[in-house]
Amino acid sequence: MNGKFIVVEGLEGAGKSSAIATIALHLQQKGISVVNVREPGGTPLAEFLRELVKRDWDERLTAETELLLMYASRSQLVENIIRPALTKGSWVLADRHDLSSRAYQGGGRQLGDEKLQQLKQLVLGDFSPDLTLVLDVSPEVGLERARQRGQLDRIEQENLAFFERTRQRYLDIAANEPRIEVINAEASLEQVHADLVQCVEQQLFT
Amino acid sequence: MNGKFIVVEGLEGAGKSSAIATIALHLQQKGISVVNVREPGGTPLAEFLRELVKRDWDERLTAETELLLMYASRSQLVENIIRPALTKGSWVLADRHDLSSRAYQGGGRQLGDEKLQQLKQLVLGDFSPDLTLVLDVSPEVGLERARQRGQLDRIEQENLAFFERTRQRYLDIAANEPRIEVINAEASLEQVHADLVQCVEQQLFT
Repeated sequence: MNGKFIVVEGLEGAGKSSAIATIALHLQQKGISVVNVREPGGTPLAEFLRELVKRDWDERLTAETELLLMYASRSQLVENIIRPALTKGSWVLADRHDLSSRAYQGGGRQLGDEKLQQLKQLVLGDFSPDLTLVLDVSPEVGLERARQRGQLDRIEQENLAFFERTRQRYLDIAANEPRIEVINAEASLEQVHADLVQCVEQQLFT
Repeated sequence: MNGKFIVVEGLEGAGKSSAIATIALHLQQKGISVVNVREPGGTPLAEFLRELVKRDWDERLTAETELLLMYASRSQLVENIIRPALTKGSWVLADRHDLSSRAYQGGGRQLGDEKLQQLKQLVLGDFSPDLTLVLDVSPEVGLERARQRGQLDRIEQENLAFFERTRQRYLDIAANEPRIEVINAEASLEQVHADLVQCVEQQLFT
C-alpha cells in the first residue's frame, strides 16, 4: 500500500475536526491526495450503524453490542473505503478508529484492553494506522465545548467518571505504543495546530 | 437459573418452525412455561439488525460485519430476554442461536471455527444452550422447500457449495459436542416429531 493512514482521536470537544482540517491542508500543500473519513460511519451501512449506536433505545444496549456495532461499521469502512484508497496511493485521514473502541468501550465501559485487542485482531487482522494523534483534553473542558455545540448523544451523556476512564485509557495506550502520539489540546489553537504539523512531519516525513 | 434453554438449528427449509411448535406443545403439556425466540431478532434493536443483515446493500457486506451483527443481535437477546426468562424459571425455545454462526459464517463463509469460538467467548462467556437439535437436511431438499415458501433473502441466495459447507459444519460440530443432537429431517413429519420428543425426553428429563 502506498498511502498513509492517519487517525485523529480524543474525547468529545477535543478539537478533532479543526485538527483534521489543519492536517488535510498541510498534506494537500505537499501535493498529497487526502481522503477524509469518520467513525462510526463512512459507508451506507456504517452510517446506519452509527445512527443505531447513538440513538436512545427502550432496551438496555449491552457494552458488547455497542462494541460489535462499532467493529461492524469499522470492517465496512476499512474494506470498502480505506484499503482501496491507500492502495491507490491516497492518504486517509480518519476522525476516530480502533483506538476509540479501546478507550471508550475498553476503558470507559471497562471491558478491558485484552478483549478489545482480541476483537481487533479477529476483525481487522494486522491492519493499523501509520500514525494516531490523540488530542488530550480534560472531560470538563471537552464536554463544555461539546455542550456549546448542541445536544449530546447517548454516549456523550455518560457521567464524568466514564470520560475520566476513557481519557486515562488513551494516555496509557499511547505511553506504550510508538505510533500513537499525544497532543495537549488545552493549549491555544495556534499551538495545537503547530504541534500537529510538527508531529506529522517528524513521524511520516523524516 | 431454573429454566432450560433449547435451540433448534438447521438449513433453510429444514422444518424448524414445525419442530419448535411440536417441542413447545410437548413442554406445555408437562406444565412448563415456554418462551419462544428467534435469531437474529427478538428485541427492537435485534429485529433492526435482522433486517440490516438480510437486506441487499450496494456495498459489499464483509463476512466479519455479518458475523458481528449476528452477535450484536444475540447479545441483546440473551441479556434482555433469554437470561431473565430462564431466571424466572421459564424454558426458552430458540429458532437458531450461536451454532448458526458457527455453521453459516464459520463453515459457509469459511471464517473457521476457532475465530467463531473466540468471538462467542468474548460476547457471551460460558452461556450456552442445554440442548441444541440440528434438523439435518440436504441443501437441495431444504432450499426447494424454502423456495416454495416465497422469495429468498440475501443469505438464502448463496450457492449450493455454501450450504454444503454449512451443513457439513453442523454435522462436524455435533459429532464432537454432547449437548448437540442431529435429527434426520428428510424422514416423514411424524418420524421427525417423534425423534424430537424422544430426544428432548432423553436429554432433559432422564
